[in-house]
Amino acid sequence: MPISLDATAAGFDADFAALLTMKREDSPDVDAAVAAIIADVRARGDAALIELTAKFDRLELTPERLAFTPEEIDAECARVPEAEREALDLAAARIRAYHARQMPEDAHWTDDSGATLGWRWSAVEAAGLYVPGGLASYPSSVLMNAIPAAVAGVERLAICVPTPDGVANPLVLYAARLAGVDRIYRIGGAQAIAALAYGTETVAPVDKITGPGNAFVAAAKRRVFGKVGIDMIAGPSEILVIADDTANPDWVALDLLSQAEHDESAQSILITTSAETGRAVADAVERHLQVLERRDIARASWRDFGAIITVPDLAQAAALSNRIAPEHLELCVADPEALLPQIRHAGAIFVGQWTPEAIGDYVGGPNHVLPTARSARFSSGLSVMDFLKRTTLARMTPESLNAIGPAAETLARSESLQAHGLSVRARLDALNAKT
Amino acid sequence: MPISLDATAAGFDADFAALLTMKREDSPDVDAAVAAIIADVRARGDAALIELTAKFDRLELTPERLAFTPEEIDAECARVPEAEREALDLAAARIRAYHARQMPEDAHWTDDSGATLGWRWSAVEAAGLYVPGGLASYPSSVLMNAIPAAVAGVERLAICVPTPDGVANPLVLYAARLAGVDRIYRIGGAQAIAALAYGTETVAPVDKITGPGNAFVAAAKRRVFGKVGIDMIAGPSEILVIADDTANPDWVALDLLSQAEHDESAQSILITTSAETGRAVADAVERHLQVLERRDIARASWRDFGAIITVPDLAQAAALSNRIAPEHLELCVADPEALLPQIRHAGAIFVGQWTPEAIGDYVGGPNHVLPTARSARFSSGLSVMDFLKRTTLARMTPESLNAIGPAAETLARSESLQAHGLSVRARLDALNAKT
Repeated sequence: MPISLDATAAGFDADFAALLTMKREDSPDVDAAVAAIIADVRARGDAALIELTAKFDRLELTPERLAFTPEEIDAECARVPEAEREALDLAAARIRAYHARQMPEDAHWTDDSGATLGWRWSAVEAAGLYVPGGLASYPSSVLMNAIPAAVAGVERLAICVPTPDGVANPLVLYAARLAGVDRIYRIGGAQAIAALAYGTETVAPVDKITGPGNAFVAAAKRRVFGKVGIDMIAGPSEILVIADDTANPDWVALDLLSQAEHDESAQSILITTSAETGRAVADAVERHLQVLERRDIARASWRDFGAIITVPDLAQAAALSNRIAPEHLELCVADPEALLPQIRHAGAIFVGQWTPEAIGDYVGGPNHVLPTARSARFSSGLSVMDFLKRTTLARMTPESLNAIGPAAETLARSESLQAHGLSVRARLDALNAKT
Repeated sequence: MPISLDATAAGFDADFAALLTMKREDSPDVDAAVAAIIADVRARGDAALIELTAKFDRLELTPERLAFTPEEIDAECARVPEAEREALDLAAARIRAYHARQMPEDAHWTDDSGATLGWRWSAVEAAGLYVPGGLASYPSSVLMNAIPAAVAGVERLAICVPTPDGVANPLVLYAARLAGVDRIYRIGGAQAIAALAYGTETVAPVDKITGPGNAFVAAAKRRVFGKVGIDMIAGPSEILVIADDTANPDWVALDLLSQAEHDESAQSILITTSAETGRAVADAVERHLQVLERRDIARASWRDFGAIITVPDLAQAAALSNRIAPEHLELCVADPEALLPQIRHAGAIFVGQWTPEAIGDYVGGPNHVLPTARSARFSSGLSVMDFLKRTTLARMTPESLNAIGPAAETLARSESLQAHGLSVRARLDALNAKT
């Protein structure tokens, strides 16, 4: 049974705090194994990749076969049915249009002192995207990772995707091509992350690595962080639905289950102003759990981490939601726009009950790589910004240096950094000698 | 002697590659000690902070004395001389004006399908800034960390600064007050980071922790990452100066030394099109090294990590600079604006020889917290963005769901995520039943 809480009941605060700190994931400690794999790939390059792929994916490769050839990609893409092809095309176009609007602007201005200041954005040169193999090999994630990189202007995009027993997912290859990926490697796990970060004879190193993965991939990303940039380390998925008595309980139940079916560690929470809606949603969830294909996973998630919280009003719903800082937040209420300003911490908000969270997973346009585990308090979903970096610019004139240089000299002295001060003083002396 | 390279000489590529991969820092492995300190603070709160502060800072505190009182801050601020006060006021005003321009805009639009899309920025609620004690306790860093947070709209700003033997730096307290910091705690090291991340009876937990620190602080920041956001883990400082024969060798030498004096692991590199300028800069560096207050540090840095590289033209200077991706880049050339478009990877660029890097450390306006160790290839300096996060928004109308929902359903099926598809289908069925 999921947790059932009433915000007006005695002991609610403690129960809610327990919900907030509930541990949903026990990451196995694979750090030592991952360190050994990374060292092996750094030392032996392709030979290590080939050996590890034979061991973990039961696939015999050669250096030439580490990457798919264009012909192999053609052949896999040809196997994608028309409907899936059209759906991916639509998704890619919408994701591209959304992310194109995120491109930030450069800035330049001259201030009162005559100094020219500003900044400039530029793309990272090369990015590597990790795509899990097997069941969790999602073509939608390929689009969500690769398109922001392409929009940002990354010149070289590589994908690593394991192909256990040599079986590839044609939709993944089609999505990769659609997003403008240059190279697709048949490698996975920590060894793929090591190859992207350090390079081998065949795999060119990249500057930034993104994409989901298992505990080995996550540990490898943490280890190579600093040598390259990485995106967030995502935890299990979450959804919070705020519903009033106008919400359709069946739709809300399916939305909750669409997170629960991801993973036994996923978390689905309903906060409702209507106890009746709460009961109706609970009933609908049970009904769907009888027949859903992934019912075992969804049932475990709902039983262990699901929650229904009844609140007296929407203001309190918003306040609790802000404490949870959910990855996905649905506002299934009569006037969602009125509730919106009260929401502060959430990765993505789905406004109104015609906006199921699943739309955002595929074709809405916004990214589906979002902050989990309450990290929406301080971080954002994936965007073009993850593939850009800012260089600040400053240009002093002799006059502006004369105006603000003495203050720099004073502060350098107060920090006992003499050469800092002298570098300003030497210029001011030259200037004053001239005048 | 610093490394001296000629880009036209045989073997240059290998020598330059060696310069790029030169290891400048041996971080002591303090991870186990830090893990124990964090566990202790989580378990015992204030009591652990008090005990650890007595041990590491030789300072006996009580829970009441963990934070400075407003009266204590007043008293320390009163000790700041007028010149330093004015210099900090000027620096704060310029840093605030620069960072105010970084505030990103929210966006909302309606697309062809009738869907409303967009995003919204919001500030993290609380941020904690770490300030080292002793010699490296820089008031300028307080401004550079706290002002972007204040500009972003962070409501609660706390500083942790160790006060060994009870000695505080009045300028640090003055800068903190100037930047709008609410609480200043007399604690340092891993225990301060633990307190900011997890909270104690006296220290309220924050959402984001920034600021420089020693190996213990860096290891603690890595450990609490995920529970809270952190800024980058900064390495030793670096400067690259590109100079032609119009550059003043004495100014360039002082600019190189202003990084070298920071730290024996700092790195100062000159790339010049003029062998004569190279020699003159080398001579000027030696001359200043005779008399500089921090000459022992600067000499070690210049000897072990300094480099002078002669190149045939500025295009090659830019290409090498992009491979180095320096934290600070000065363009001391006749036409710096012409060179600027060729520069891609740098934390901050100082344009023209009237712009010494030290201006950027204090009063220029841009942030002085910048990516080191070649990470300007994929990351940016500190900015208001570090204290903001983006929530994406999507609102479907029944019509827009009808238009794009079927594609989402198709993709959900292809990923074997049935509930995802059903959450869309249930709505489409209701809609079609109505019409």
